[in-house]
Amino acid sequence: MSRGVSYEPLTPLSFIKRAAYVFREKTAVVYGDKKYSYTEFYQRINRLASALSRIGIGKGDKVAFVCPNIPPMLEAHYGVPMVGGVLVSVNIRLSVGEVTYILNHSDAKVVFVDTEFASVVDKARLTNVHTIVNICDEGAAKAFDGPEYEEFLQTGSPDPMPVVLEDELDNITINYTSGTTGLPKGVMYSHRGGYLNALGEALHGGMNTDSVYLWALPMFHCNGWCFTWAVTAIGGTHVCLRKVVPEEIYRLIEKESVSHISAAPTVLIGMSSYPKAKECNMKVKLNVMTAGAPPSPTVIKNMESIGASVTQTYGLTEVYGPHSICEWQRKWDSLDIDEKAKIKARQGVPYITSEFMTVVYPGESEIKEVPADGETMGEIVMRGNNVMLGYYKQPESSGEAFRGGWFHSGDLAVKHPDGYVEIKDRIKDIIISGGENISTVEVENLLYQHPDVQEVAVVAVPDPKWGEVPKAFVAPKPGTNPTAEDIINFCRERIARFKVPKAIEFGELPKTSTGKIMKFKLRDKEWQGMDKRVN
Amino acid sequence: MSRGVSYEPLTPLSFIKRAAYVFREKTAVVYGDKKYSYTEFYQRINRLASALSRIGIGKGDKVAFVCPNIPPMLEAHYGVPMVGGVLVSVNIRLSVGEVTYILNHSDAKVVFVDTEFASVVDKARLTNVHTIVNICDEGAAKAFDGPEYEEFLQTGSPDPMPVVLEDELDNITINYTSGTTGLPKGVMYSHRGGYLNALGEALHGGMNTDSVYLWALPMFHCNGWCFTWAVTAIGGTHVCLRKVVPEEIYRLIEKESVSHISAAPTVLIGMSSYPKAKECNMKVKLNVMTAGAPPSPTVIKNMESIGASVTQTYGLTEVYGPHSICEWQRKWDSLDIDEKAKIKARQGVPYITSEFMTVVYPGESEIKEVPADGETMGEIVMRGNNVMLGYYKQPESSGEAFRGGWFHSGDLAVKHPDGYVEIKDRIKDIIISGGENISTVEVENLLYQHPDVQEVAVVAVPDPKWGEVPKAFVAPKPGTNPTAEDIINFCRERIARFKVPKAIEFGELPKTSTGKIMKFKLRDKEWQGMDKRVN
Repeated sequence: MSRGVSYEPLTPLSFIKRAAYVFREKTAVVYGDKKYSYTEFYQRINRLASALSRIGIGKGDKVAFVCPNIPPMLEAHYGVPMVGGVLVSVNIRLSVGEVTYILNHSDAKVVFVDTEFASVVDKARLTNVHTIVNICDEGAAKAFDGPEYEEFLQTGSPDPMPVVLEDELDNITINYTSGTTGLPKGVMYSHRGGYLNALGEALHGGMNTDSVYLWALPMFHCNGWCFTWAVTAIGGTHVCLRKVVPEEIYRLIEKESVSHISAAPTVLIGMSSYPKAKECNMKVKLNVMTAGAPPSPTVIKNMESIGASVTQTYGLTEVYGPHSICEWQRKWDSLDIDEKAKIKARQGVPYITSEFMTVVYPGESEIKEVPADGETMGEIVMRGNNVMLGYYKQPESSGEAFRGGWFHSGDLAVKHPDGYVEIKDRIKDIIISGGENISTVEVENLLYQHPDVQEVAVVAVPDPKWGEVPKAFVAPKPGTNPTAEDIINFCRERIARFKVPKAIEFGELPKTSTGKIMKFKLRDKEWQGMDKRVN
Repeated sequence: MSRGVSYEPLTPLSFIKRAAYVFREKTAVVYGDKKYSYTEFYQRINRLASALSRIGIGKGDKVAFVCPNIPPMLEAHYGVPMVGGVLVSVNIRLSVGEVTYILNHSDAKVVFVDTEFASVVDKARLTNVHTIVNICDEGAAKAFDGPEYEEFLQTGSPDPMPVVLEDELDNITINYTSGTTGLPKGVMYSHRGGYLNALGEALHGGMNTDSVYLWALPMFHCNGWCFTWAVTAIGGTHVCLRKVVPEEIYRLIEKESVSHISAAPTVLIGMSSYPKAKECNMKVKLNVMTAGAPPSPTVIKNMESIGASVTQTYGLTEVYGPHSICEWQRKWDSLDIDEKAKIKARQGVPYITSEFMTVVYPGESEIKEVPADGETMGEIVMRGNNVMLGYYKQPESSGEAFRGGWFHSGDLAVKHPDGYVEIKDRIKDIIISGGENISTVEVENLLYQHPDVQEVAVVAVPDPKWGEVPKAFVAPKPGTNPTAEDIINFCRERIARFKVPKAIEFGELPKTSTGKIMKFKLRDKEWQGMDKRVN
C-alpha cells in the first residue's frame, strides 16, 4: 500500500517531525552544559540528513557510527533514515577486527568515528567506506582525514527534508549481535517495527511529555531498546551520557530530574552498591527498566530500597530489544518485598505491541507449547511486527532462526500457571549433571543473597562422574573476603545437593559491552582440550 | 504483506487477546452490580463471535447494534470483527426513518436491538436483516421474534476463535454520520486505523493498567473515540453506563474510582452545573477528555474547579474521533486559570499517531496552508492512518471529501504562531455580516461568561441591511431569569458592535444524540421561505 489520504507508512521519523512542531523551545537533548531545544535538535538532524545527501547517501545506503551516547549518536537515528539510509550503530567496545568485519560486512559507505574510539577503526582495511567523519567530543582532536562532525553539519541545510520512505517495511537500522558464538550477525529492523516498539516503550514505561530519560543504556544496543525514538515520540527529554559510571548517573538524576533510565542488571548492581546511592535526592520517582540478563531478586530489592521502581523487560537484539514485560498486577501490592522482587525477576508477558511470545519444546520440528506449570522448560519463541526482518546477507542464519515460522530465542524458560514466563537459562548455559537439569540462573539468584557476593556466574565444568557439574565464579563485594567453603556451605543449606557448585573461583567477571557476563569465556577455559562445551 | 515471522496485521483484536492472557481475573467491565473479569469478558466475546459464525456471519458481513453503553455494545466491538464482520453501531437517538435507512444502506444481516430502543427499528422495512437478537437489559421483555442476547451467547463457544484477518486495511466498523446536512453517510474504519488511534488515546490520555474509564460518551460515536479498544489495550477497566445523567456519573466516579471520562462539552456543562458536583469524593484525579464541539473556556474552568483535569481533543467521525489534542506545555503552568482555560479551548496539534493536520485556504483547488498568524481563517484538513477509508458505497462523497489528497473537515480555524489550531466556526455556521466575518464560537464563548447563561448557540439570521446578523439562543441557568437587554448589554461592553447579537431567544436548545447543538435547526426556522441558509 502506498501513501494516500488514509495511509501513511509508519516510521519513527514522524516522531521528530511532530515533536519539533509541537514542542519547539522545549529541551529535547541535554549533554553536559549543552541543551538543544526540539527546534535545534530537528535542525541538526536535517543538517545531518542534507549533508549526507550531498555526499551521495541515499536509499538503502549504510552509514555507520562508532560513537558513545552523545548527541551525534542520537541525531544519527533520525538523520540517516531521513535520506533513506540505514544506520549501523557499532558496539564501541569491540576489537578492531570485529569492527572492521562489521563495517565491511554492512557495506557502510560513510563512518562517523568518535576520536576516543578511533583505535578500533582500521581505515586501511575498510572496503566500502568513502568518507570518515570525525566526532571530536570534549575538545578531542581529529583522528582521520575528513570533516569534523560540526563542520559536516554546516554543509547541510537546517530545513526539513522531503520524506523518501515509500514502504514501512524498509530497513531502518542494522544492529550487529555481539557474536559470542561466531561472527557478529547484522539484525535488520524496519521502520514499522521501530515505530511500534517505540510506542510500546512509551506506553509500558508510563512516559509523558514530562519524562526525562537518562542514556545509561548504549544506543548501539538495539537502538537503545528503541528509546532513541520513544523519548522523542512522547516529547520527553534525552539526557546524554558519555561514560556510564554510578557517580555520574546519580549526579544527572539529581541535576536533570531524571524520571526514566534503562540498564542491564550489571549497571544496577553498580548503582545499588555505590556508597552514596541513598544520598541521591530523586525529585521525581525513578523508573528503571532492566533487561539483557535475568536480574536476581536481590538486585531488584536493592534498587527499590534506594527509591527506584524497577520493571523487568526481556528481549534480544533480534526482537528490537524488550519484547516482554513483567507487567505488575495490583494483587501483588500486598506481598512483602522479597516476594515482590521474586515476581519482578520474571520475564513476564508480551508487550502490547508484540503479542506473540510463547515457550515451546526445544529441538522439535513442530512448534508445540509447553504446559504452563512453572516447571516444564522450553525455548522462548516470538513472532510479529517486532521480530527482525532477518540477518543482513545471511539468509541461512535467518532461516535457521525462523524455523517453524517463529524466531527462536535460545532462552530456556518455564511458563507459570498465570502465563508469566521465567527464564531458567540460555540453552547453551544449562548444566546437565548426572541426567538432572541445573538452571545456572537459579543457583546465581541464590548466591546473590549471600552478603559478600557482588556478582556471580555459574557455569558447567567437566566432571568424570557426573559428566558436568556447576562451578561458581564470584566477584566479592569490596572490603569482603569470602572463602569457597563459606559460599558452598551457604548453598548446601538452601538448595538440593546436586545443584551446589563444586568449586568456587574469585575474581572479576568478563563482560560484553552491554554488561552481560560472558559465561562462554569462563566455560571455554574449563573445557579446553575437551570435545564438548566449546560454544 | 501477509502474516509472517516479522509481520502481523495491526488490529484492535490483539488487545483483547493480550488482556485476557495477562489480566485474567482483573475486572474488565463493570455494569451496575455486574463485574466481568478479563477472562469472562473474552469468553463472552468468543461466544458472540462463535454464535455469529454459526448463523452464517463471516468476512465482510455487516452486523448492526442499536444499543446503549452496556456490555453487549462493548462485546460487539470485538466479537463482530473477530469473524471478519463489520460492526455498524447505530445512533440510538435517531428516528425510525433514519435507523431504517442505516440498517438497509449498510446491508446489515443481523441486528441486535436493546428493547428500550426497539421502537426505532421497523422490522417490516428491513431489506437484508435475517436475524434480530434482543438485548433485554434490566429485565426488559423481548421486542422481536428471535433469540435473547444471553441465550444467543450460549449458542457459541467460549474458546478463542482462530484469527481470520489477512489485511490490516480491512474494514472493521462503519459509523454513520449524524446526517445533519443530508442522508447519513457510512464512515469506514480499518483495523489498522482503529489499532493506531487506540494507542494514541492511551498515550495521550496517560492511561495505565490502573485506569478506570467511565462510558459517558456513546460507543456508537466513532466507536467511543476508539476507547472501546484503548481501555482494553492498556488493561484498564470499562465502567458501563446506560443513561448519561450527572447524578449517575458522580455516583460511579466515587464508587468505581473513575480516572478517565470522555464527553462532549454539553455533558460537561451538565456535570459542572450539577448542584452536588463539589461534594463528589474523587479518589483519583479525574482526567476529562472533551471534543465534539469547541468547549468554552468557562466550561473548562468550571470543570477544573471541581477537581477535574480537562484536555481538549478535536476530530470528526471521518478521522476516528480525536485527531488533535491541545497538548499541555509546562511553560503555561504559571498562567492564571482564565488564561489556562483559554489555551485549553484550542484544538491544538496532531496526535502522535495522526501527524498530518493543517489549515488551508478554503475553496481553492490547490492545497495551500494559511500563515500561522492566529488570524487568517482556513479549513482544517487531515491525512494519514487515522483518516477513514471512505464513505460506504458513496465513492462520489468520498472523492469530494478527499479532494486534493486531504480529508476536508468543514471546520474553519486559525493557526496560532505556536502551531496550535483553534476553531473559529463550522464553514456553514460562520456569519458574514456587511462583509465582516463573525465567528459564532467567539460570541458564544463570551456569552458563557455571563452568570445566567447555561448554554448558548449563535446563528446567522437574515437582515435587510447587513445581509445577515447574529442571533443568540440562550438556555438560562436554573433559577435565573435574564432578559434580552441584559445579554445584549453584556456583549456591547465586551465585543465589537457588529458582533453583538441583534436578538436573543430563550429556551432549550435542540441537540444531536452526541450532544452537539443543532444550529441548523435554529437557523432553518429563521430562514424559512428565503433562498439561502437552508443547510
